[in-house]
Amino acid sequence: MENKRIVSGMRPTGKLHLGHFHGVLSNWLKLQQEFECFFFAADWHSLTTEYANTEGIRDSIREMVLDWLAFGIDPEKSTIFVQSQVPQHAELNLILSMITPVSWLERNPTYKEMQENLTAKDLSTFGFLGYPVLMASDIIVYKAARVPVGQDQIPHLEITREIARRFNYLYGEVFPEPAALLTETPKVLGLDGRKMSKSYGNAIFLSDNAEETRKKVMSMVTDVQRPLRTDPGEPDRCVAFTLHSLYVAEEKRAEIVASCRGAQIGCVDCKKILAQSVVDTLSPFRAKREELAATPSLVEDVLAEGAHKATEEAGQTMKDVRAALKV
Amino acid sequence: MENKRIVSGMRPTGKLHLGHFHGVLSNWLKLQQEFECFFFAADWHSLTTEYANTEGIRDSIREMVLDWLAFGIDPEKSTIFVQSQVPQHAELNLILSMITPVSWLERNPTYKEMQENLTAKDLSTFGFLGYPVLMASDIIVYKAARVPVGQDQIPHLEITREIARRFNYLYGEVFPEPAALLTETPKVLGLDGRKMSKSYGNAIFLSDNAEETRKKVMSMVTDVQRPLRTDPGEPDRCVAFTLHSLYVAEEKRAEIVASCRGAQIGCVDCKKILAQSVVDTLSPFRAKREELAATPSLVEDVLAEGAHKATEEAGQTMKDVRAALKV
Repeated sequence: MENKRIVSGMRPTGKLHLGHFHGVLSNWLKLQQEFECFFFAADWHSLTTEYANTEGIRDSIREMVLDWLAFGIDPEKSTIFVQSQVPQHAELNLILSMITPVSWLERNPTYKEMQENLTAKDLSTFGFLGYPVLMASDIIVYKAARVPVGQDQIPHLEITREIARRFNYLYGEVFPEPAALLTETPKVLGLDGRKMSKSYGNAIFLSDNAEETRKKVMSMVTDVQRPLRTDPGEPDRCVAFTLHSLYVAEEKRAEIVASCRGAQIGCVDCKKILAQSVVDTLSPFRAKREELAATPSLVEDVLAEGAHKATEEAGQTMKDVRAALKV
Repeated sequence: MENKRIVSGMRPTGKLHLGHFHGVLSNWLKLQQEFECFFFAADWHSLTTEYANTEGIRDSIREMVLDWLAFGIDPEKSTIFVQSQVPQHAELNLILSMITPVSWLERNPTYKEMQENLTAKDLSTFGFLGYPVLMASDIIVYKAARVPVGQDQIPHLEITREIARRFNYLYGEVFPEPAALLTETPKVLGLDGRKMSKSYGNAIFLSDNAEETRKKVMSMVTDVQRPLRTDPGEPDRCVAFTLHSLYVAEEKRAEIVASCRGAQIGCVDCKKILAQSVVDTLSPFRAKREELAATPSLVEDVLAEGAHKATEEAGQTMKDVRAALKV
């Protein structure tokens, strides 16, 4: 029987924004139609960088999972759980740490890069260095066949594959080497033209109401080389237009491009069209989210059921691991 | 109520020898009269250096625990268990790894030393580097007040105390800082005069029968500066005499010292006296061990019961950890 299992996690950063939707969630929605999916909130991963500031993690999980469910991640189809509720991740992490050379972790390109970029945080911890080992555990503890990744995560997955290979070499074949399921992720720009990110304060959240959404869209940067309404504009230079590509139908978009270049439409009117499209797209989701949020125990129940299923599967794998390891 | 809890572990290396007895076990026997003891087989620790050779670990645990029980480590008084059967050690290890600076581990004196000495093994693994974090988890997951250590292990315990302190500082008071219970451990010499060690092939095992024991004692190196029976000898230069100090009564020993220095007793006769004392001391233990070994499920039952008790205690601590960590 073909292994159709996929594992993918998200760090709980709270309510999701359009960047998360187009980067991950829309892909998950497709995957769950075709694969056996394990989707998890990676709260232990949050500790690798947020260990000094854990205050909001539980709320963030709840908000994030509400977004998942509202958008159609379906607990009947997929196993939805919180990493820290499945102790086998930690157990396998400990075992894999024994066979992982420190040099594999030090050469991880993200390691030095994040240490250099996040200078406000002390990232010289053992856990931060070991992040790829934990990631390997998360994936292979379910014997996943594939992992959806963006181009930038390929080196991480390569470490996972190397660790799985090394385990199999030392103790006998237990783990499949998970293959990359390369996903194209459009880079979603925030209101100010930088990458959309909660920490930049430039994000449109999936759960923003119509008014908030409209206000944010209307504040988006457009073509800065078009100071006057009467100047011709260039959609390729326009931050807002990156969202048109995602939210406005092709025919309408072609019309807008022509009108912009011909100075027949101003940025305010153009963004009104965009705002309406975004609001129209998100409003059924928002209604669903409010409906789900009205049942306070819903998220908890889904996660308890998911943790139960995940623990069962991970427990099976750990039996094989112990048998191979003879410990 | 005073915290009387103690945690101590031994790596499963198989049958124990006199060095283990005088170094650790005799101390455990005293401790269990006075303290609430958690004694464990540190099989995950074995993986830090033996990950490529796990074949014998399970048998080693059985043989070692038989020795413990035969010598009087009492499952009614102490909690006796195997580390890998209590997943909370791994869970806490993962959490503590997030707050432990890599530099604390790199400066651990044992780290470089073992890497230099055990050149036949590749010890450049992440798990070997993280050994002090796992040790910290083993201890504080039971909120132990004290840890019996030899002088050489003081730096390790200092890292444990630092990690506990850092956790308490970041998340609130959860762990007591375990204090060192310094134990004097006589250095037990092997047959050839080097430190007694299974790997040197110079050990007298607690479970050796009378004949094996006699043969080994008779092969012990004596005063090499006394080539002839008629030369006067010097007990302070005699390897065998280090065991006389442990196994022959004081009065008899004084007599031997005088006879040796006066060349009135030869090494063969002198070692016969020693051999008889060692055999007499060990034989009730050996009888007990055989009796225990005759019930095949005994060790398994003791360890299952111990794992159950340990898991319960460690589970309580992890509730406090999660509450403090808010994850």
